[in-house]
Amino acid sequence: MTLVEQLTRRFAEHIGQRLLAPGARLPSVRECAHHHAVSPHTVVAAYDQLQAQGLVEARSQRGFFVRERDPRAVGGARAGVAAASPVRPLPNSATALIRGMFQAPGGRSMPGLGTLPAEWLDAAMLTAAMRRANAGGQAAAFALHYGDPAGELRLREALATKIADFGVVASSEQIATTIGATQALDIVTRTLLRAGDSVLVDEPGWSVEYARLAALGMRVLPVPRGESGPDVAAMRRLIEAQKPAARPRLYITVSVLHNPTGASLSLQSAHRVLQLATEFDLHIVEDDTYAHLAPAHAPRLAALDALERTIYVSGFSKILTPNWRVGFLAAPAALIDRFVDTKLLTTLTTPSGGELAMAHCLEQGWLRRHAERVRVRLAAARERTTKLAESHGCSFAAPPHGLFGWVDTGVDTERLAHTLIDDWLIAPGSIFHAEPRPTTLMRINFATSQDPRFWKALVAARTRL
Amino acid sequence: MTLVEQLTRRFAEHIGQRLLAPGARLPSVRECAHHHAVSPHTVVAAYDQLQAQGLVEARSQRGFFVRERDPRAVGGARAGVAAASPVRPLPNSATALIRGMFQAPGGRSMPGLGTLPAEWLDAAMLTAAMRRANAGGQAAAFALHYGDPAGELRLREALATKIADFGVVASSEQIATTIGATQALDIVTRTLLRAGDSVLVDEPGWSVEYARLAALGMRVLPVPRGESGPDVAAMRRLIEAQKPAARPRLYITVSVLHNPTGASLSLQSAHRVLQLATEFDLHIVEDDTYAHLAPAHAPRLAALDALERTIYVSGFSKILTPNWRVGFLAAPAALIDRFVDTKLLTTLTTPSGGELAMAHCLEQGWLRRHAERVRVRLAAARERTTKLAESHGCSFAAPPHGLFGWVDTGVDTERLAHTLIDDWLIAPGSIFHAEPRPTTLMRINFATSQDPRFWKALVAARTRL
Repeated sequence: MTLVEQLTRRFAEHIGQRLLAPGARLPSVRECAHHHAVSPHTVVAAYDQLQAQGLVEARSQRGFFVRERDPRAVGGARAGVAAASPVRPLPNSATALIRGMFQAPGGRSMPGLGTLPAEWLDAAMLTAAMRRANAGGQAAAFALHYGDPAGELRLREALATKIADFGVVASSEQIATTIGATQALDIVTRTLLRAGDSVLVDEPGWSVEYARLAALGMRVLPVPRGESGPDVAAMRRLIEAQKPAARPRLYITVSVLHNPTGASLSLQSAHRVLQLATEFDLHIVEDDTYAHLAPAHAPRLAALDALERTIYVSGFSKILTPNWRVGFLAAPAALIDRFVDTKLLTTLTTPSGGELAMAHCLEQGWLRRHAERVRVRLAAARERTTKLAESHGCSFAAPPHGLFGWVDTGVDTERLAHTLIDDWLIAPGSIFHAEPRPTTLMRINFATSQDPRFWKALVAARTRL
Repeated sequence: MTLVEQLTRRFAEHIGQRLLAPGARLPSVRECAHHHAVSPHTVVAAYDQLQAQGLVEARSQRGFFVRERDPRAVGGARAGVAAASPVRPLPNSATALIRGMFQAPGGRSMPGLGTLPAEWLDAAMLTAAMRRANAGGQAAAFALHYGDPAGELRLREALATKIADFGVVASSEQIATTIGATQALDIVTRTLLRAGDSVLVDEPGWSVEYARLAALGMRVLPVPRGESGPDVAAMRRLIEAQKPAARPRLYITVSVLHNPTGASLSLQSAHRVLQLATEFDLHIVEDDTYAHLAPAHAPRLAALDALERTIYVSGFSKILTPNWRVGFLAAPAALIDRFVDTKLLTTLTTPSGGELAMAHCLEQGWLRRHAERVRVRLAAARERTTKLAESHGCSFAAPPHGLFGWVDTGVDTERLAHTLIDDWLIAPGSIFHAEPRPTTLMRINFATSQDPRFWKALVAARTRL
């Protein structure tokens, strides 16, 4: 293969895998030539080929961009439906990041990874839990019937015990299992809101959340998230700026080890948020996905509020296994049946196998011991990564806690992401905003950013940008 | 316990389990007294107690009704959200039927059951598939990562081979796995439609489908379903009656062994439906949930159409196991990525364990052999049940095929359902309509309606109504 062919194929692959999302700008000819140590002529020829293949388009004075896939190009029949789709495309490189989360192991390194690295998880424990929970013909018996619509009772009881550690008191009847925390969030918003409703969401925050709400036709009101919690004064102004009938009735927040800042809600903030919620009759969805990476005493809204107006959501993707897709919600008694009905409408029930194995991990104290080990290891990784970041000219926009660091690189991190894409998948700050905006921040995963070569590459790229 | 206490407790249990749904009418005092062989005074006293407990309410001249649970009674905080809920409650006894589907085994008999009875499934095969597919540390390796967003490739390849048996040609890249066929239907409608859009759906049809579309804020246009397919002339009138901008762009149908009538689409009907779809630029969702109970040569829309405008949806709940929740969709190449994106927004990914075990069942021919056995057994059950129904004064509104019979009892089947509820759970025809209406039809499951005592009880109840 010629150099041109190699370069063309490499970009075509990135576009095919959506690591370069539709609308993304390709590196400038100069940047690309420098990065791949080829001549500018080679880059121009490769970009021309990509354009001929319909993968990118040139925009006058602005460079080359990955083409939006246009359904009309494929067939008139599909154009009508596609054009009317309510799904707002994910922000520029959110698709790339999210798809990147699902790359097969052995691929590129991922300082932007959203989970613990696979080698930090306990495969032997998971296998044993699955085997023991389903021993003695139990799995067979369960396979023959739909599961309980609310989820396996054994798991719901173990969850009630577990969340009591966090001060959240719920009976097993107030708990419903879900396909990961993601389905819990989907169920709650679909049940409590309708298209056109506004909803308060922390910003920065998780792009899948913004995209899902937009896809459901909901209007996101971004609440600035600070070190000790949301900006309650700003939240009040946001609410009062709406006409009474259009005011939000729901606030979605990650209170402990917030993604991407790593910040946790202070007790005082929690109290003030709940006061505001009472004043304006808001429900709150508390997404506690990172619960097991935090000290147990971190205050939860659902604990202060005694599940009066808070719906507590969590799962095990960030501590035990992302694959089993076991999540849950704990809700006020008056709402739980409505959430279970929505679950029935969307997936009928959830598979029992993973739920019983998860119950086993909780009952036997396996989760607790594993989480302790992970927290110790993560603290060491955090210390090491923090030093590396700071010694390479980066600073922290929020004090380092938990799995994620919110790092200021001094340069636009979208462009940084594109420059590094061949070797390192990073999470640019723009995708953590409801409306993408240029930012010099990025989210790092303390566990997967310990390689000094990454920080060296970042410095080198920064110098060129 | 006194007779009054016994009767009160029995009704309270039914209401608690939602076998008597909110809004359902209790049997008349006379009926109830006769049925339970107690005096009318006992019934009146029991109904009074239920009323005192807040479970039922008396409506002047009309009798006693199960109370709608009123969230305002629980706390003012929740009232606003509850009142604004877009979820249309399921039709009167649809909740009862659906919850009934999830009853633990050993409960009451269910002539209205929606699946094969547990004893018809092959527990040993399912256990072996789960064990073999996950042997050699595979399960452990899979547990450490999110699955492929589109689902396990091994299953998608096995599915591509399988649906080719039905004439549906799709590459593994056009297939995405889902949490049962239910999630596939949810994903497609959420991606292609927005709140306020109208959508064509067969009627009679599956109540969960109507309820889900209503919950998403969509307007159901019911298409009369006949013996050889939908009434295409009525479909055209329905479309043309809408203003051009408000015309439906999607038609949802069960083409083979339609629920509840058991009817399958003729080749001629399939062609006419596709002509209409082309004329009005409709997409079609073909729900082939009962595929494995039908002869392979039954025509599929997706086969005629070559997946141009048809999205093919199916699963394994009605043939192998309802619990694993393995379903899928096969879509036009231009749409599949958008469906996978919606899947990411709602559950991120699906668990790999069940998908790999399902792939094993397909690859080894286990599904094929099991389905052959089931079809033979079902044919015998159908013959026996048909004779029983006809010899007890019932007739078939559609020729008996597949799992379900659509039976005319000659009396209102809502009332029949309430009268029989202590011993037999039936599926009254009213719940198969987009807008519930009184009907003398009911859906029976040929496999679970072979007990002559059921038919005797039905005749006795009919005489009293």
